[in-house]
Amino acid sequence: MLRQLATTIAVDTRGRGLVEVTRTLEAWLGESAIETGLLTIFIRHTSASLVIQENAAPEVRGDLDRFIARLVPDGDAIFRHRDEGLDDMPAHVRSALTATQLAIPVADGRLVLGTWQGVYVWEHRIRPHRREIALHLLGE
Amino acid sequence: MLRQLATTIAVDTRGRGLVEVTRTLEAWLGESAIETGLLTIFIRHTSASLVIQENAAPEVRGDLDRFIARLVPDGDAIFRHRDEGLDDMPAHVRSALTATQLAIPVADGRLVLGTWQGVYVWEHRIRPHRREIALHLLGE
Amino acid sequence: MLRQLATTIAVDTRGRGLVEVTRTLEAWLGESAIETGLLTIFIRHTSASLVIQENAAPEVRGDLDRFIARLVPDGDAIFRHRDEGLDDMPAHVRSALTATQLAIPVADGRLVLGTWQGVYVWEHRIRPHRREIALHLLGE
Repeated sequence: MLRQLATTIAVDTRGRGLVEVTRTLEAWLGESAIETGLLTIFIRHTSASLVIQENAAPEVRGDLDRFIARLVPDGDAIFRHRDEGLDDMPAHVRSALTATQLAIPVADGRLVLGTWQGVYVWEHRIRPHRREIALHLLGE
Repeated sequence: MLRQLATTIAVDTRGRGLVEVTRTLEAWLGESAIETGLLTIFIRHTSASLVIQENAAPEVRGDLDRFIARLVPDGDAIFRHRDEGLDDMPAHVRSALTATQLAIPVADGRLVLGTWQGVYVWEHRIRPHRREIALHLLGE
Repeated sequence: MLRQLATTIAVDTRGRGLVEVTRTLEAWLGESAIETGLLTIFIRHTSASLVIQENAAPEVRGDLDRFIARLVPDGDAIFRHRDEGLDDMPAHVRSALTATQLAIPVADGRLVLGTWQGVYVWEHRIRPHRREIALHLLGE
């Protein structure tokens, strides 16, 4: 019989950049005893987002950061919203261009991630933040 | 026992820009009496999209619009598809760079949106359109 | 009574560009006899992604390809990760800017896609690849 579980986790970021959460997700999935299903991940912020990226070569994350910093520059004259500083509005744009939510199927009690896929919280603000992520798991 | 509900809503846009639909979603959720679950939102178009953004400072939406208009310029010489005008192909690109679908967990009968998060339809065409959004709600 | 089904499909790409998978998804949905529900599509790679785009005018796909090739240039000096060539890191960035996962509601036994919407695998590497896509279907 299908059932659902839900929880919220907190992720402490170290300022701009990617923080891997794959193991945290797998640990919660493991406790659930769900074998087949769907895990949905939702970040409750508009200045941090979610991304699935390669978990092997660490320079991939640095390249992603440099690319997005050039695409959406801090202090760009086009931005009027600067309530929290020059990285405030760029964080909202980065969030709009990446993902606020991901859903990953579960098979044999595991996320069906590809060999090189990891799930990351992408902090878009310069300073560290505590980010809240809502998880929803459906399955049996 | 888990159950599902589905409906379609229409959203009238005012031309380019963001239209908030958070209250419409919450109203439908409220009628469902679902306490815990998952709401999926799907926009049935490729020239308008969905985005979760800050609902406090109104200049955030203006900044988003200006940024994406510069990133994907109307009438860009790179575009051959102009069947419906110079804003036709840019609308498809904006749609590909943002979201066609969002899923938001439900807890205590409410969407687990963060304090500053609102759900928006992002109209990418210059003229107003009526946009159709399919909703799917799972829960109990 | 709600039930779920899951499978994995392989999609052979022809190198960079979009490959439509709408019919493959509809065929699997048709076999399931699910009338109302939700189909989730997850691509198990970080150098190919998913996108819903117009399925009518073929030049839309060419325009998308040209736009993203200019936005994320192969061999950009900003990229240090080049293990698999000059199109390696651009593929990861394209993947981060588009979607790794999509969920589409099902009504009357069909995906609720708009008239002009097709579901595509977007290959970001120059060479052809075999891509794995995990499908999860919930419904009744």
